[in-house]
Amino acid sequence: MKKEFTVVLAPDSFKESMTAKEACVAMELGIHKSGFPARCIQVPMADGGEGTMRSLADATGGRIFTKTVSGPLGEEVEAEYAILGDGETAAIEMASASGIHLVPREKRNPLITTTFGTGQLIGACLDHGIKKLLIGIGGSATNDGGAGMVQALGGRFLDENGIELPKGGGSLGRLHGIDLSGLDQRLKSIEVEVACDVSNPLCGPEGASHVFGPQKGASPKMVEKLDENLKNFAEAIKNQLGHDIINIPGAGAAGGLGAGLIAFLNASLKPGISLVIEYTGLEEKIKNADMVWTGEGSIDFQTRYGKTPYGVAELAKNWNKPVIAFAGKIGDGIEPLYEKIDAIFGITEGVVPLENALTNGPRNLERTAENVARLLKIKSRKGF
Amino acid sequence: MKKEFTVVLAPDSFKESMTAKEACVAMELGIHKSGFPARCIQVPMADGGEGTMRSLADATGGRIFTKTVSGPLGEEVEAEYAILGDGETAAIEMASASGIHLVPREKRNPLITTTFGTGQLIGACLDHGIKKLLIGIGGSATNDGGAGMVQALGGRFLDENGIELPKGGGSLGRLHGIDLSGLDQRLKSIEVEVACDVSNPLCGPEGASHVFGPQKGASPKMVEKLDENLKNFAEAIKNQLGHDIINIPGAGAAGGLGAGLIAFLNASLKPGISLVIEYTGLEEKIKNADMVWTGEGSIDFQTRYGKTPYGVAELAKNWNKPVIAFAGKIGDGIEPLYEKIDAIFGITEGVVPLENALTNGPRNLERTAENVARLLKIKSRKGF
Repeated sequence: MKKEFTVVLAPDSFKESMTAKEACVAMELGIHKSGFPARCIQVPMADGGEGTMRSLADATGGRIFTKTVSGPLGEEVEAEYAILGDGETAAIEMASASGIHLVPREKRNPLITTTFGTGQLIGACLDHGIKKLLIGIGGSATNDGGAGMVQALGGRFLDENGIELPKGGGSLGRLHGIDLSGLDQRLKSIEVEVACDVSNPLCGPEGASHVFGPQKGASPKMVEKLDENLKNFAEAIKNQLGHDIINIPGAGAAGGLGAGLIAFLNASLKPGISLVIEYTGLEEKIKNADMVWTGEGSIDFQTRYGKTPYGVAELAKNWNKPVIAFAGKIGDGIEPLYEKIDAIFGITEGVVPLENALTNGPRNLERTAENVARLLKIKSRKGF
Repeated sequence: MKKEFTVVLAPDSFKESMTAKEACVAMELGIHKSGFPARCIQVPMADGGEGTMRSLADATGGRIFTKTVSGPLGEEVEAEYAILGDGETAAIEMASASGIHLVPREKRNPLITTTFGTGQLIGACLDHGIKKLLIGIGGSATNDGGAGMVQALGGRFLDENGIELPKGGGSLGRLHGIDLSGLDQRLKSIEVEVACDVSNPLCGPEGASHVFGPQKGASPKMVEKLDENLKNFAEAIKNQLGHDIINIPGAGAAGGLGAGLIAFLNASLKPGISLVIEYTGLEEKIKNADMVWTGEGSIDFQTRYGKTPYGVAELAKNWNKPVIAFAGKIGDGIEPLYEKIDAIFGITEGVVPLENALTNGPRNLERTAENVARLLKIKSRKGF
């Protein structure tokens, strides 16, 4: 047996149970308890969804800051942003400022919800003198095409009388003029990358309003209105800025925030897991490792579509490394995952209430990791 | 990598989810799905408790029969017995005829419950011309010192007027004469082994009545009465048969059935797991295997005390074989098990209602077995 193995620990968070970093720690504790001689490299992961900012900060030795911004309905919310370990890259999640979870169900109304707070959060990042900005855009409460974000950064959207439009997707039908003279000049010198796993266009039956509007509180009538408004928004952008964004895949993400980021911040969209892999330097670490461990709260047939364990495993397989995955919940249809993941283990201790399973997550992951490592340790003349 | 590994599959049943045999089948299916090159030897196990008869039959290619006998309160019950694969050994569980689960809570009364049905079951075994009888004695509803069993086999217990006593531990205080002239003569030519994991004596504060009486429905006053009666029973046995059973460890098992089996059937008591190991021929199979897999519905700090996974693991370790265990529920305090068990895996798929976990047991065990085998496959490929 080799003297020491190098194991890359690259899990996502286990939602409501532990952050990705905490999952790394549990795995490493388990490995060390087992006596399996391994050096662990912790790379907390994410897939562009919730927890991405934190994992990027944790993986790079970055720092998380809090900023008070306007929530989706203008109320004050405490939002977070991260400055990564390199000191020049910021990471935010739009949901932190403009997320659906910030709006009680009965108040959800995408005619008036705004991405203004997301713009304020970007402003806070700019104050750190960053060169790069990474944005996760899942979980939005908005359908404003990112107009609110631009407003927060100094842009103005005017009606035909030159009066500034109120916030929210409901007023974009009256958009006539776009005034970017006051737009934060620092935006010009940064590169913006957006974690985006949907390919919906801005408008139409597959667009932001029709597909995501209803879950944000839009009635069928509101959906029609919002879709028309975004069309008008896109036309104004095309006519006045020369950007044709209406059919760009992903422009419809996060209520059209995708489109706004492309048009006004010159952003590029990328699958979330690719972006996280890039900024955590995961490939370099995997290259030199003997084995890769990953995991997530739930692993099932959806895991293949852009989730962390599969993205990590695909990368590991490019380097011919064994991959082991852990999950709190193992759902149906995992068989195709075996193409990339060598073995998948559930961590729960048996039938317990959800609350206990969530609370016990770290010790359950530690115990399962310990036993997987114990299995790897089994010495035998028989060649196991 | 070796061309083919031999894996002994020796689990207990997973209570209320699958028999030991079904657990073997699930494990083997998982191994074969994994592509790990293994020949599996199925040895359904038990520890002397519930499922022992079935596992002994399954492990030896034996057959299970049904017999209508008297239940603990004289009602008709369908009890089972097994003739093992050798054709000359029978196995029964006293609970099948005289178990506490057969008596509704409000009717539990160890003054009148009887082991008569257990005696009838033994009689049915004798009709097969057996040479050996194995008895599991857990879960009894009785406190009659095995008197009912003896009555069913032709013995008579008489009061001082020579009148036969009624059934149940409540009348043994009036026992005066023992008449074995009608006892089934075939009992003389068989060897009886009893699976017994308790060391309680027949009488006194650690005896059958005090320790196990209350859970069978005895009030404190009844406990005193029952204890005195068993003392009288033991004295009669000592005076008339020359057997001093009162202080034999295990005589107090199953409401004193232990004592009755020793005194009247010349039985020897053994830890359940040892008895099952012996009659399944487990050691011979382990000797020639590369690895041993075991498991049980629940694995926790109690597993060390006579439970199947630990007994199997102890034996495997004598032959220096790696041991892997599976459980539906992993409880607290499993660390000491690692002395004998190399790795322990939970099989549940996540937080689900108990009913689902029990129903899904076979597929969960199969999936976990598959993934452990997948891990072994990469282990041998990569030299971990």
